[in-house]
Amino acid sequence: MSSSEFQVTGMTCGHCEAAVRAEVEQVAGVENVDVSAQTGRLVVGGSQPIDDAAILAAVDEAGYEAASLR
Amino acid sequence: MSSSEFQVTGMTCGHCEAAVRAEVEQVAGVENVDVSAQTGRLVVGGSQPIDDAAILAAVDEAGYEAASLR
Repeated sequence: MSSSEFQVTGMTCGHCEAAVRAEVEQVAGVENVDVSAQTGRLVVGGSQPIDDAAILAAVDEAGYEAASLR
Repeated sequence: MSSSEFQVTGMTCGHCEAAVRAEVEQVAGVENVDVSAQTGRLVVGGSQPIDDAAILAAVDEAGYEAASLR
């Protein structure tokens, strides 16, 4: 299981978390999504390597901005 | 056209507005809904009188609290 972390800005509530989760879950290889509006932290996991750029694009699609943390 | 105003607490974003709107639109007689997360103001209009208690219940169903303003 590999995972990647991102910092998302602009989420304010559980609906925002759900919007980000819904988009990120559609990215190829994503099997697990942890997202917190309170901290802005997004952790994405899967058994295969995941394309960080695709995650950033998915967050953008949901209407938020993200930066990769590693 | 009659209208009623309510003050809603807890909305933080457009998703919250949409959640409140979706529930309030289902109340009998509601033909128009204006809702703002920024101000918390909810204005509900219709050609027939609308049951304030039903609006308060709808907002509660959406996960927020409201008080009637008149």
